[in-house]
Amino acid sequence: MSRFFSSKYEKLVPYTPGEQPKNMKYIKLNTNESPFPPSEKAVAAAAEIAKTLQLYSDPEVTPLVEKMSEVFGVDKDEVLMTNGSDEILNFAFMAYCDKDHPAAFPNISYGFYPVFAEINNLPYEEIPLREDFTINVDDYIGINKTIFIANPNAPTGIALPVSEIEKIIKSNPDNVVVIDEAYVDFGAESCVPLIKKYDNLLVTQTFSKSRSMAGARLGFGIANKKLIQDLNTIKYSTNPYNINRMTMAAGVGVLCDEEYTKKNCQTIIENREYTVKELKKIGFEILDSSSNFIFAKHPNKDGKEIYLELKERGILVRHFDKPLLSQYNRITIGTKEQMQALIDNLKEMVK
Amino acid sequence: MSRFFSSKYEKLVPYTPGEQPKNMKYIKLNTNESPFPPSEKAVAAAAEIAKTLQLYSDPEVTPLVEKMSEVFGVDKDEVLMTNGSDEILNFAFMAYCDKDHPAAFPNISYGFYPVFAEINNLPYEEIPLREDFTINVDDYIGINKTIFIANPNAPTGIALPVSEIEKIIKSNPDNVVVIDEAYVDFGAESCVPLIKKYDNLLVTQTFSKSRSMAGARLGFGIANKKLIQDLNTIKYSTNPYNINRMTMAAGVGVLCDEEYTKKNCQTIIENREYTVKELKKIGFEILDSSSNFIFAKHPNKDGKEIYLELKERGILVRHFDKPLLSQYNRITIGTKEQMQALIDNLKEMVK
Repeated sequence: MSRFFSSKYEKLVPYTPGEQPKNMKYIKLNTNESPFPPSEKAVAAAAEIAKTLQLYSDPEVTPLVEKMSEVFGVDKDEVLMTNGSDEILNFAFMAYCDKDHPAAFPNISYGFYPVFAEINNLPYEEIPLREDFTINVDDYIGINKTIFIANPNAPTGIALPVSEIEKIIKSNPDNVVVIDEAYVDFGAESCVPLIKKYDNLLVTQTFSKSRSMAGARLGFGIANKKLIQDLNTIKYSTNPYNINRMTMAAGVGVLCDEEYTKKNCQTIIENREYTVKELKKIGFEILDSSSNFIFAKHPNKDGKEIYLELKERGILVRHFDKPLLSQYNRITIGTKEQMQALIDNLKEMVK
Repeated sequence: MSRFFSSKYEKLVPYTPGEQPKNMKYIKLNTNESPFPPSEKAVAAAAEIAKTLQLYSDPEVTPLVEKMSEVFGVDKDEVLMTNGSDEILNFAFMAYCDKDHPAAFPNISYGFYPVFAEINNLPYEEIPLREDFTINVDDYIGINKTIFIANPNAPTGIALPVSEIEKIIKSNPDNVVVIDEAYVDFGAESCVPLIKKYDNLLVTQTFSKSRSMAGARLGFGIANKKLIQDLNTIKYSTNPYNINRMTMAAGVGVLCDEEYTKKNCQTIIENREYTVKELKKIGFEILDSSSNFIFAKHPNKDGKEIYLELKERGILVRHFDKPLLSQYNRITIGTKEQMQALIDNLKEMVK
């Protein structure tokens, strides 16, 4: 830190992304990437538009928003595209939290939420999960705070049904409720249809997981058009050209290939069920996942030890060095072959 | 605006980007884009890496930072890459301004500076230019504020010599001075070498203009490594994967083609000198530009009228509807053919 850095950030601890080893020899099950390549339509569209990079991208991201409207069944002014879903989450903290509207989110969830609150100097409350890592919906009823819930939650993978989330939205009519659906395509229900009914609901999603585009940085929010207007005010006050031309083209490309996306999600779900079944056979305890990762621990072996030994064996998983989480590892669901390698190694390790 | 939007943004007026007409029939001289396509090396690199978009981009942007270090002659930890230079400018407002460190910048400059101050709820002072649109360096000596100066300035195009800027940096040793060199490659001197001498200097630049990559969104800051650490803290607290894979690859590609960049800059400078000479012949008054645009007015014809009539004739330039600027138009320097079309049309309009 320099001597010039503003004292308002004294308590700020930045987010730590998962390891991104430069040598590609690992089986990478640590950052919830898709094991499948991007749609050929996305690749071709990005390659073509790269020839015209001298022109600014369209700040309204028109062709992509039009395609989004078609695929998600919402109006064009109910959509905002962002540079990854981190950007729209940050915008939501900026737009809807202040000293009179503190943020509230589970104490175990996406690790970036408290960082967004800190960087924006916002008050926030972390609401404990139940001991079984589920969200107690009653804790969020009529709390008059700006609520952020990842559904499915991370790193647990556990999903709430939409009917439960609706109770939270309905009971906080004067506060925005943000449902972060980064992992929704792997078996959970989406709240997108509820945006027509509630003016205080913002749903965020990403192209990083189910659409194999983590490296393109494309996220989005869907909400009532007045919320989208607010978020556009933030966008046009920080980075109007937030989506580059190639990412926009790739986004349109992949949305023209929904069959491919659906097939990949189905494969991930099958591989997840297989992995869970095999790991349970050798004693692993695994939370009930509706996402492209599982959160698993073993009664006879320390979580960090498992992480380190897997790494030595060429398999990267994500370990969180925090009190309630340290016995677990978050394991991304990859191809059948990758999961078999994981299972075989874990079998040797815990026998 | 929704009823949920935080009252802290009551006074916020977002930045207005230049028009981006969807039909491509205009000669676009309104957003300071390069008229030349991106380097073939950039295009090829982006197309190739698009095939692996399922993987996250490297948050440290390693290959690009290595190449930057080589091309700009600085250490790797003296560089930070951002999603356009707007992002690093916003980071600098966040990191180095607060109630005890107000921002200060010219009253006529990049229109985004006051917006960055407003979105971050920061105090700021706009220091008037002289009547001839030049910056009076004495106004910035020892002012104890966080100073932002575009050099060359926009929309005037006028550059300060590095020796003058050095006086400002030296006289404000306890405040950061940000020199925004978006247009430096078209005839101005860069302050980059001064970062070795002053720990309070941050130089920002962009790949949008001289490197024909406006649509890729790539900007950067060069500074003492402690300042880069601060700015990384902001990055890792807002958007760690801010640079997508394709933009990173294109950035490495274009830096492997510096001859192409230099040749294009030289052509723009020649076209600018030709345009200035021809427009002066028909009575235009033009500020002394060191950038890829000129700021021009005509004693017999209203600035807005010129803008509207050119638009009707299929040529877009940028007009600012502000008291001190409204008689002028900012005209991007394009190809020789584009400039000839501009000159021919203006000749008809003012005769």
